[in-house]
Amino acid sequence: MKHGGNIYQFAKKLNCRSNQIIDFSANINPEQAVKPDSIQNVTLTPYADPEYSDLKQAIKQRYHISNDIGCEVFNGASAAIFSLLRWLQPKHLSLYSPLYGEYETIASKLQCTVQNINRFTDLANDIPENSTVIFVNPSTPDGKLYNLQKLLEKWRQKSCTIIIDESFLDFCDTESSSRLIPQYEKLFIIKSLSKFYGCAGIRIGFILASLKNIAALKQLEPAWKLSSFDMEYIQTALANQIFVKQTIEKTNTNREQLFHVLQNSGLFKKIYQGQANFLLAQLKNMDAYQLQAQLEPGRILIRICDNFTGLDKWHVRFAVKDEKGIDHLEKHLV
Amino acid sequence: MKHGGNIYQFAKKLNCRSNQIIDFSANINPEQAVKPDSIQNVTLTPYADPEYSDLKQAIKQRYHISNDIGCEVFNGASAAIFSLLRWLQPKHLSLYSPLYGEYETIASKLQCTVQNINRFTDLANDIPENSTVIFVNPSTPDGKLYNLQKLLEKWRQKSCTIIIDESFLDFCDTESSSRLIPQYEKLFIIKSLSKFYGCAGIRIGFILASLKNIAALKQLEPAWKLSSFDMEYIQTALANQIFVKQTIEKTNTNREQLFHVLQNSGLFKKIYQGQANFLLAQLKNMDAYQLQAQLEPGRILIRICDNFTGLDKWHVRFAVKDEKGIDHLEKHLV
Repeated sequence: MKHGGNIYQFAKKLNCRSNQIIDFSANINPEQAVKPDSIQNVTLTPYADPEYSDLKQAIKQRYHISNDIGCEVFNGASAAIFSLLRWLQPKHLSLYSPLYGEYETIASKLQCTVQNINRFTDLANDIPENSTVIFVNPSTPDGKLYNLQKLLEKWRQKSCTIIIDESFLDFCDTESSSRLIPQYEKLFIIKSLSKFYGCAGIRIGFILASLKNIAALKQLEPAWKLSSFDMEYIQTALANQIFVKQTIEKTNTNREQLFHVLQNSGLFKKIYQGQANFLLAQLKNMDAYQLQAQLEPGRILIRICDNFTGLDKWHVRFAVKDEKGIDHLEKHLV
Repeated sequence: MKHGGNIYQFAKKLNCRSNQIIDFSANINPEQAVKPDSIQNVTLTPYADPEYSDLKQAIKQRYHISNDIGCEVFNGASAAIFSLLRWLQPKHLSLYSPLYGEYETIASKLQCTVQNINRFTDLANDIPENSTVIFVNPSTPDGKLYNLQKLLEKWRQKSCTIIIDESFLDFCDTESSSRLIPQYEKLFIIKSLSKFYGCAGIRIGFILASLKNIAALKQLEPAWKLSSFDMEYIQTALANQIFVKQTIEKTNTNREQLFHVLQNSGLFKKIYQGQANFLLAQLKNMDAYQLQAQLEPGRILIRICDNFTGLDKWHVRFAVKDEKGIDHLEKHLV
């Protein structure tokens, strides 16, 4: 499976309902800031405010974004990536791999040369002048949180266009690189809200960039695109500040539990020290397909990582689920 | 105002709430097939089926689309237009004007030549070989329903790529041009669901084309884009068959009422014989800005049509609203 999260194909194979799948393949917070049914009285008849002002205001408040930074909203981070790269039309892309599959998908469709830099072994490698750099921080599928200071300096010296995907940054108690936007015109921050807020069915993500770049990017967007229900939902979620602290704490605790479960299983050669809501592990004696087969009777879906550049069929990713889910996994790892 | 429906700016100007505006500017059915609050228990946590199979099935059933025709879903017709034209990358566009503003917006951003053909006066005009033709049927802002047989023949003889926007066709009891897709590879049908189903806050529209073209078009779409709530809502709406008949009947009745109200006001030189859920009218002694000013105390917003190619500030469009809304308009036209 190319992406995580195709529980529908998996459920069909197992002849069960999709909500019976214990999905370790998609990095979605098992908790939600808002219960869907508490969103009532959404007005669906009129067109939404085409500026999406209230939503943008809620985003800016939640992430402490100053007024000299622009923000544009999209139907999820995946849609944001497509729009941004189509607008930038880069001549040369430097992808720090392994990374989120959507970047390679779109890269292969643009008329540009693509350079893959292995983050694990070649982080210091040179990149050409004016390249468009894509870096996911914390990274996927390994969840490493990078201090980007030196890399940012290097990229700036090369006049690179810099895209930092911070879709998993909310799980870490760390500052966003977006604060550097007023100092560097060619910096773009992409952010998903689905992962942290546990709602992949809500399609809202955003891009932060200079006011000028956001204005130009918006020119190529349709007049309306966001669901009024989704906006109402995510604005309510963004206002729930207690949820932020709770999620970070709970994710830390459950990630530790998951780490020990994987370690104690004895199946893995290496478990990466991830700092997001998932863990990457390298298998020892069986490959990821064999492990997936072993977990099938438990209706457990995992993310086989052989289509990440730089990884192979010995690598598997596990989302940090709740205690009960991890207990269930533990039983089936034996 | 470039688009209809910006009730937010208007409400701000009048210092009232947006739901206090009587909006004649946006062509939205005042009735809905489904009450928003009846959509319960939507699962927002997991990613949706990336194939959107259930939704596409519901669309195909509602519109009697055979299996040799492909369907791709988008975040509304506006998003569909952008995606389709970006994928087609036409060299020459023939726009039958006046037409929906999004076409001119995107046309101005593509690297192509644009030919405007006035539907009212130059329908028989020649178009160059291989041009990409865009025709809205029934048309906006005048609501004329065209029999396209002869035009389609002409376009095919010129090997044109043909885009028919049928966003308002559901209001007429007429067959879609989509049945011709198996006979002509270069035919595309665009369809909005917001207008007929009275839910502009739900962002779902679709394109019908050959299976081959849909497969290619899909390649440039992000993995996920549609809201799970919106999908659930529209699937329920599409299943409501009684609503279809009721809406056509009610729209006919109310359009007739609106026609008489406009006619009896004595303000108009001409009222176009529209067959959709709106009417275009040409003013006699005051222009549309003056009329809008007159209607402001009644919190009535209308669509001034001076940014439609071929029209001017003497043209104004009225959506077909419910009886109460039309009565309210009548009082303020005096």
